[in-house]
Amino acid sequence: MNVLEERIMKDGRVIDSSTLNVGGFLNHQLDIRLIKWIAEEIKRRFADTEVTKILTIESSGIPIAVMLGDLYDVPVVFAKKGSSKTTNDDKYVSSAYSFTHQKMNDVFVLKQYLNPDDKVLVVDDFLADGEAARAMIDITVQAGGEVVGLAVAVEKASQRGGKELRMEGYHLESIAIVESLDDTNGQIKLRRQ
Amino acid sequence: MNVLEERIMKDGRVIDSSTLNVGGFLNHQLDIRLIKWIAEEIKRRFADTEVTKILTIESSGIPIAVMLGDLYDVPVVFAKKGSSKTTNDDKYVSSAYSFTHQKMNDVFVLKQYLNPDDKVLVVDDFLADGEAARAMIDITVQAGGEVVGLAVAVEKASQRGGKELRMEGYHLESIAIVESLDDTNGQIKLRRQ
Repeated sequence: MNVLEERIMKDGRVIDSSTLNVGGFLNHQLDIRLIKWIAEEIKRRFADTEVTKILTIESSGIPIAVMLGDLYDVPVVFAKKGSSKTTNDDKYVSSAYSFTHQKMNDVFVLKQYLNPDDKVLVVDDFLADGEAARAMIDITVQAGGEVVGLAVAVEKASQRGGKELRMEGYHLESIAIVESLDDTNGQIKLRRQ
Repeated sequence: MNVLEERIMKDGRVIDSSTLNVGGFLNHQLDIRLIKWIAEEIKRRFADTEVTKILTIESSGIPIAVMLGDLYDVPVVFAKKGSSKTTNDDKYVSSAYSFTHQKMNDVFVLKQYLNPDDKVLVVDDFLADGEAARAMIDITVQAGGEVVGLAVAVEKASQRGGKELRMEGYHLESIAIVESLDDTNGQIKLRRQ
């Protein structure tokens, strides 16, 4: 098991059969050494890939994206949800269903922050049905850029996102893959990688 | 002028007399080297202060908080807005008016991530009326912890937050202080520090 997998087994909590709480180290309280390790592991897995921009979505993808931006020395862009007073410029807009908040969110990136020559690594903390990933792919395509890969800390194999994205030929790397969550005994089953 | 001040003068855009857009480097697209510099400057200004936890609020404070967590080698906690399916545990809850979204937001931190012995450095990208800072102070006090300081990238001197917090005795460090924004000619006036 890698560092993240060990941590999930130790400190992850099963809320129900589709919900794993990793708030203690990944997306509410952050273990920065772990976040850094995840970023290093992502960069290692994309060793042969040129990346000019890291794209994530607020909020929980930002810590890993920031550490990756530091490692690659490229700008990080985070897609924003909803509309904003300070952003009346032209935007690339997409929408994504939020599993956590159980509603559709409009997400956008200002056009000036994504370019046709950008080679974009899409990053997030979780991959479930792939809604957020799809929105970021959509936004990158609208900008004429290229999605060179997708990287997430935790993929939930019981939901369709990872399987579909791989079938479509995307280079997807998930640092930990949760096979199943048993809410009767709190057991977490990870896929061997 | 310091690195952030120079960047604001070069790339900041005046939207109106109370709104400065720094989305190109601070809170939409992120210049990671600049974010790192800001974190280093904050740590320098709090050189004599013991910090056991970095507290910020989603989303724009997260990048600076992550870099500070790395420098201090302490956990980062980000307060979340609204309610969440994955968090049914006990929370410390406060509320803050969002200048950007022009509405009240409930913000919370799960109780297990803040402790009575925590020495908390509160971090954000902007300080205007101090609503977000107040919510984070409130949450820290509820936890029995100590706010050892507040640090923001940009303070807007035309709004009351910074003045009030200093009068109340908080150690507040703002890496750049915007004195005024002129929306007739786009001029930005910074306070000399």
